Amino acid sequence: MKKRIAILATNGFEEIELTSPKEALEKEGWQTEIISPESGSIKAWASTDWGRSYPVDKTLEEAIASEYNALVLPGGVINPDRLRTNEKALQFVKHFFEEGKPVAAICHGPQTLINAEVVEGRKMTSYPSIKKDLMNAGADWYDKEVVVDKGLVTSRTPDDLSSFNKKMVEEIKEGKHEHAL
Amino acid sequence: MKKRIAILATNGFEEIELTSPKEALEKEGWQTEIISPESGSIKAWASTDWGRSYPVDKTLEEAIASEYNALVLPGGVINPDRLRTNEKALQFVKHFFEEGKPVAAICHGPQTLINAEVVEGRKMTSYPSIKKDLMNAGADWYDKEVVVDKGLVTSRTPDDLSSFNKKMVEEIKEGKHEHAL
Repeated sequence: MKKRIAILATNGFEEIELTSPKEALEKEGWQTEIISPESGSIKAWASTDWGRSYPVDKTLEEAIASEYNALVLPGGVINPDRLRTNEKALQFVKHFFEEGKPVAAICHGPQTLINAEVVEGRKMTSYPSIKKDLMNAGADWYDKEVVVDKGLVTSRTPDDLSSFNKKMVEEIKEGKHEHAL
Repeated sequence: MKKRIAILATNGFEEIELTSPKEALEKEGWQTEIISPESGSIKAWASTDWGRSYPVDKTLEEAIASEYNALVLPGGVINPDRLRTNEKALQFVKHFFEEGKPVAAICHGPQTLINAEVVEGRKMTSYPSIKKDLMNAGADWYDKEVVVDKGLVTSRTPDDLSSFNKKMVEEIKEGKHEHAL
């Protein structure tokens, strides 16, 4: 079955953390869409400075969460710092947890999950700087290249991308997970 | 009495959140020093992009916390994200809380205080994106331009700088606070 996957991001997303999972998903023959609070295009962060711009496929106003099979949250220091205070972004994210649909978040991506209030009791990893915030929010944090917990796939940094992509694809193939929340 | 104040920052500090408090402190005739994990100079973030470089007065290796009367923590999205995982930075910060010395933190600056484990039960504010992290760490968070709690001065954004600087100077004039932890 052809899957449709939402990649939620805004300006300041870490470039490779969007392009690499996107490529892995499209290799499976699946459709990906970049969803953002911004319309037009959003600017990547490429390791140490602003990178290229990427077209937004649908704004959060236009996107309907129930039409997607899974969600990907790239990191970057700036991107989730903006998304996590956007009420529409949080509602969009919550849908995937409520429905038990796979969610893959890397690096600082899990910051948005703290504000969506979906991390309590979940096994996770992240960029080390937000470890304490995730633990304070009730997550069980592990220092591993990839952590999988009932459809939730998390990784620490771009170095973990090959394991992250592999597990993300596996979880999406499995589909909805029961009792994900 | 001439005061000596440490400004702890690294690459990616929000420029005006360092220069404006620095100027206010020097106007009082006090000595300020930029302390950083980096030697040489550190690069500011100026609202939407990298800004100018500023010379580091002492590295964290060289600086002796007990020689300073107060501590200032500028924000910026990138700066505290780096400081908060630096063990030397956390030890430096803890000294000021243990001794009841005034600490002024603005915007994302308080992220470093979460990792220093000094926010529990403290009245604070911050940039809105880290509100939930501070509350999960046990802080009482207020949406006010400046919050003062026993020598701890916090503000939300550069727009609050005039109130922030005023209260920071007041608290430093008062000196050590009893029972600050």
